[in-house]
Amino acid sequence: MTGNSKTKCVVAVDAMGGNFAPRNEVLGAIEAYNESGDFDLLLVGRKEKIIDEIKSNNLKFDEKYIIHAEQVIDMHDHPTETMKTKPNSSMAVGAKLVRSGEAHALVSAGNTGAMVVNSIFGIGRIKGVSRPTLTAPLPNEKGEFTFVADVGAFVDSKPQHIFEFALLSKILIENIYSINNPRVGILNVGEEESKGYKLTADASKLLRESELNFIGNVEGNDIFKGTADLVVCDGFIGNIILKFAESIIPFLKATFKNYAELGLTNKLKIGMVRGPLKEALKKANPENTGGLPLLGVNGISIIGHGSSSPLAIKNMVLRAKEMYDKNIVNKIKGTLAEYAEK
Amino acid sequence: MTGNSKTKCVVAVDAMGGNFAPRNEVLGAIEAYNESGDFDLLLVGRKEKIIDEIKSNNLKFDEKYIIHAEQVIDMHDHPTETMKTKPNSSMAVGAKLVRSGEAHALVSAGNTGAMVVNSIFGIGRIKGVSRPTLTAPLPNEKGEFTFVADVGAFVDSKPQHIFEFALLSKILIENIYSINNPRVGILNVGEEESKGYKLTADASKLLRESELNFIGNVEGNDIFKGTADLVVCDGFIGNIILKFAESIIPFLKATFKNYAELGLTNKLKIGMVRGPLKEALKKANPENTGGLPLLGVNGISIIGHGSSSPLAIKNMVLRAKEMYDKNIVNKIKGTLAEYAEK
Repeated sequence: MTGNSKTKCVVAVDAMGGNFAPRNEVLGAIEAYNESGDFDLLLVGRKEKIIDEIKSNNLKFDEKYIIHAEQVIDMHDHPTETMKTKPNSSMAVGAKLVRSGEAHALVSAGNTGAMVVNSIFGIGRIKGVSRPTLTAPLPNEKGEFTFVADVGAFVDSKPQHIFEFALLSKILIENIYSINNPRVGILNVGEEESKGYKLTADASKLLRESELNFIGNVEGNDIFKGTADLVVCDGFIGNIILKFAESIIPFLKATFKNYAELGLTNKLKIGMVRGPLKEALKKANPENTGGLPLLGVNGISIIGHGSSSPLAIKNMVLRAKEMYDKNIVNKIKGTLAEYAEK
Repeated sequence: MTGNSKTKCVVAVDAMGGNFAPRNEVLGAIEAYNESGDFDLLLVGRKEKIIDEIKSNNLKFDEKYIIHAEQVIDMHDHPTETMKTKPNSSMAVGAKLVRSGEAHALVSAGNTGAMVVNSIFGIGRIKGVSRPTLTAPLPNEKGEFTFVADVGAFVDSKPQHIFEFALLSKILIENIYSINNPRVGILNVGEEESKGYKLTADASKLLRESELNFIGNVEGNDIFKGTADLVVCDGFIGNIILKFAESIIPFLKATFKNYAELGLTNKLKIGMVRGPLKEALKKANPENTGGLPLLGVNGISIIGHGSSSPLAIKNMVLRAKEMYDKNIVNKIKGTLAEYAEK
């Protein structure tokens, strides 16, 4: 794609992160590596565990690419405290590899908060970024994506932060998803400017005065409608929306199960429904997205669900490589430098 | 159900409210009346229009129960301003009927904000209620409802407001939905108390110290899971969640349509899916709920979608009658009086 003289992409995978670590991490990462080949893979974590996993799955992987990290951050660890209590965690060691330039990307399905903190402090922020953002693609009625940012890197945003979420996400959307000059909407409870929080009004002002393609307020139903390409909001509401969205497919499954249990006819009907439903909703399957990029850190950081499958891990690794190939971090640096000059 | 010596319930319907007014209002309200019989119905709005609608549908309705109101609030009217600019709107006239005791309930599918304002100032608040709440039932995986409050009566809640949302909603849930001592969760971005806004922490403290069955933080995915019976939050986020939830079925329809358009096989598959899907998702159909009660005003106020069908209007009217029969307003008064004594 780029074919330039850049060094080969190195992706570090936190092998201890997810709920099924190191199994899903090892399987998914090595599959991505075998499929693409065009990058170097580092597996970071408890070396003996990683080797066991590789062996028990009859995989081949050069041990020199396994970077030992003694500590493991679990889902109950307090994000900020892990910086002190677990300086040798797989996440912290992975972040150090990115900071030193030994890797270009860190991928983890571990504790989201800890990964945000370890990325920001371990990898570092890009100059001009006050708060990085997690940007999530949600499917929409048009068969495309509506992006939502921030989906939970931070709560209690200031107007400037929300403006930055838009700026950072725009670069991702244009370069990875090929949507030129994405329409940016701000999440609110009505169309009128006077509605909502003071934060919303103040952030709208910044967005309106910028060169972004700002279309004003959008409401909860506009995400699936695809009224905007990008919907910005504070991470508190973005996180709740993301988790709510992720619960739709489990809700549908449970609802169909309840319905099927009412009798044989229902059971047969639901049996016919399942396949087509799964096919039609393929785009809504978060496994295909894999994980969410944390934009604004000085390197690539991709954060996945604790329950990430090997497929999800594989897609996260391939996305990291794509972000490297498409120069996302440097493009963000350039854009923020331009803004700093204004 | 109650069989007491109460006077017969009188439901006033804002006949001019919704996008299809007065048609859907007249059809739905008269159908509720014909089906139940056990209440008096007042149709409020432009008399000649209402009569035309009744005639053109060959319905029978005694004209003395049509209460003329000259003005009509539309969807673009600024809610608060309607109190000054449209004192003779169908909403304002309906609210006055409730305040004077000539009606017990007001039902409208009009401008939500205007209905909130007209209910609060026209009907009046119950003593001890600082902010009324709109409480919405959303379906959950268990085939039951998870209630969310507030879904948009107010933004920028204080902790005390969120506590009141729980208190008011509990009375509705226990009496109308027969869920005893409902589990109350507060919407947040993680399980730990330290997460989220200061508002969330402060409201949690009030809820924890109260006699409510408070289970702590719940997240976006807990609504459909049914982790709590009632989820409380500020009206900003509640409104966005409600509108997002309402957009799920249209999103699924559009997604199936896109999928069907890819070829004949897909089209046939989707043809088979539609019926069972609709049946299984019956509970998720907002038409069956009809509208949302505004709890905390000194009378029954039910607010529906602008696009309410005659079925939705009918269900709103029947719900208003049920709330009267089950003495919801008096029970709220009693509960708040108890709290005031503490």
